[in-house]
Amino acid sequence: MNVLVYGAGQLAQMMYLAGAPLNLNVLAVDVANKTVVHPVEKTVLPQSLEQAINDADVLTVEFEHVPEELLLVAEESGKLSPNLQSILVGADRVREKHLLESLNIANCEHEIITDIAQLDGICERLGEKIIFKSSRDGYDGYGQWRSSTAADLPELKNIFTKLDLHKVPIVAEKMCPFTRELSLLGARNESGEIVVYPLAQNTHHEGQLHTSIAPAPLLSEALQAQALDIFTRLAEKLEYVGVLAVELFEHDGVLLVNELAPRVHNSGHWSMHGADTCQFENHLRAVCALPLGSTEHGPAAAMINIIGCNTFSKNFLSISGVHFHWYGKTVREKRKMGHINVTANSYADLADKFGNLSEYLPMEFFPKLLADADRIK
Amino acid sequence: MNVLVYGAGQLAQMMYLAGAPLNLNVLAVDVANKTVVHPVEKTVLPQSLEQAINDADVLTVEFEHVPEELLLVAEESGKLSPNLQSILVGADRVREKHLLESLNIANCEHEIITDIAQLDGICERLGEKIIFKSSRDGYDGYGQWRSSTAADLPELKNIFTKLDLHKVPIVAEKMCPFTRELSLLGARNESGEIVVYPLAQNTHHEGQLHTSIAPAPLLSEALQAQALDIFTRLAEKLEYVGVLAVELFEHDGVLLVNELAPRVHNSGHWSMHGADTCQFENHLRAVCALPLGSTEHGPAAAMINIIGCNTFSKNFLSISGVHFHWYGKTVREKRKMGHINVTANSYADLADKFGNLSEYLPMEFFPKLLADADRIK
Repeated sequence: MNVLVYGAGQLAQMMYLAGAPLNLNVLAVDVANKTVVHPVEKTVLPQSLEQAINDADVLTVEFEHVPEELLLVAEESGKLSPNLQSILVGADRVREKHLLESLNIANCEHEIITDIAQLDGICERLGEKIIFKSSRDGYDGYGQWRSSTAADLPELKNIFTKLDLHKVPIVAEKMCPFTRELSLLGARNESGEIVVYPLAQNTHHEGQLHTSIAPAPLLSEALQAQALDIFTRLAEKLEYVGVLAVELFEHDGVLLVNELAPRVHNSGHWSMHGADTCQFENHLRAVCALPLGSTEHGPAAAMINIIGCNTFSKNFLSISGVHFHWYGKTVREKRKMGHINVTANSYADLADKFGNLSEYLPMEFFPKLLADADRIK
Repeated sequence: MNVLVYGAGQLAQMMYLAGAPLNLNVLAVDVANKTVVHPVEKTVLPQSLEQAINDADVLTVEFEHVPEELLLVAEESGKLSPNLQSILVGADRVREKHLLESLNIANCEHEIITDIAQLDGICERLGEKIIFKSSRDGYDGYGQWRSSTAADLPELKNIFTKLDLHKVPIVAEKMCPFTRELSLLGARNESGEIVVYPLAQNTHHEGQLHTSIAPAPLLSEALQAQALDIFTRLAEKLEYVGVLAVELFEHDGVLLVNELAPRVHNSGHWSMHGADTCQFENHLRAVCALPLGSTEHGPAAAMINIIGCNTFSKNFLSISGVHFHWYGKTVREKRKMGHINVTANSYADLADKFGNLSEYLPMEFFPKLLADADRIK
């Protein structure tokens, strides 16, 4: 079977590696150039995108911000999984919020700003701490902004006045207090079968994921059941096929949905060593109409991102249960270069391994690692 | 780092898949055509063999019967791991027997036949049940023969008279009684670090490996220690770098070496799901001077070869802990097409999964599966 992935980054690469044993021939699309590339070597292949779509049995995505005109062609072929609607929900915060509201799934209190006048009195309604997010990414001048006090609003108004809020609305979200950030990854196939991984606990730093620990420490059955319920309602509503990632906040034992990603997800990389079937294999199984694989997992696993650095010895591989995944990219500040997977017999053991890793790694690039170790000791 | 593998079959393919995450660029040599090929897609690549040797940091093999002139060039480059001597030992039963004898490592009683006259009285010396093996493979007219009674000898003499026994001697081996066939796989790197996997128990049928179960059921610490001792003495004597497979017979709690394979081995495929670091990754770690990975393993894992068939549904993937590895080859009778890996919580659970698999698989191609299940119940 031929699988064509829109996007040619590390997620497509890891799909290729998971697909080959299943006799799945995974190719990638460099969406910027509309070329077909080898997902590992990144060499441009001779076939045109059109040809590759024709040859493919399945089209899928490694990121949700594929240009819409490409997605429309993909959808028309009848081979796209997950479906267009699901991808668009992931790419558009307004659609995402509408979906969550329609299913009564808890999420941060918010307003959708399509007119600058809506900012009037917003601090009375949502509080002073608000995060403003463009509904869609990749438009000049758009992005994310924060207000800490009502005094920040005039400047934000200035900025927003220059934007076309009808075309690209802004989602103003009350900054929810939360105990921790979690994510639930799961897969659904065409026959409606669903499997989910245990909730992972995620550590972010300057807007980037640094560490995922799975299962999330102190994970109760009730919390996992709550997450499964959210996942199931979303996946069924979307008639979703593939792996879907749900980013969550936990507050007082209650989960709020923060974001959806209609694809395999960085916070699921631990599953490559920590679970019976990794997220890449389960995504491929789902989109290729194969039975889903078990998500049985060990007592404690983690994924540590390697961000913005490529100068370190690989001697950390001497630590048992430690594996290395390199994406083969040119180094840039803040760029995800690879990740380290760790499996352990307990959280204490995992903490020890984090400590052990810190002796090998350039710690300025892993600012959260030791704090994470302390949290799980 | 660039790794060039002599041999472009499934073992090179699985090395590629294990190497990519480690930032190892694995290419393969089709030794029949002396072309460089992509180990997964098998496409012929533009570089010449000479160029590829130049570009490589490491040369290694996926089988021991690489034409000697190619091995000599490889050895000359100073990049070959394991070394030439180790590969030749695996390719030549006389060298293998000399090595075992020089280390006093128990193996089946045998004589090396370089002259037809040596057959006189051989049944008095080795018993009537003898297996005669050409010392090297791939020569016309050579192969393996058996005698069941002394009356079989005249016909064998007739056959052997036509062979050049000085060029390719025959090893006459007493058929040893044994309880079971086992194999030990391990890796050694340049700094002398050694790791071994638990002994696997192997089931053969008509000369082909059908199933490996690891750890071997009822594996005692003493037996594993005996195997480790054999492995260590062999690997150190050979100054071996890479994964080495030792095929063994167990008789009355004593291990006899049957054969050596200077490479990753079919009976180690279970490690892809059953051990912390699989044999392919450990081979690459060894030959690339990386620290070896832990061989920690679960309670029970197995590898089931798919031989000579390609018509079955993949619905067996619905069984938890079951994974599929397909080699992408054209089907031929007796050809290894792929394998199924199974992990389980106990041998009883493993036996249940074998039974479960039998409901999905065309059982005429898996004639030993249910007997294996019965043995471990």
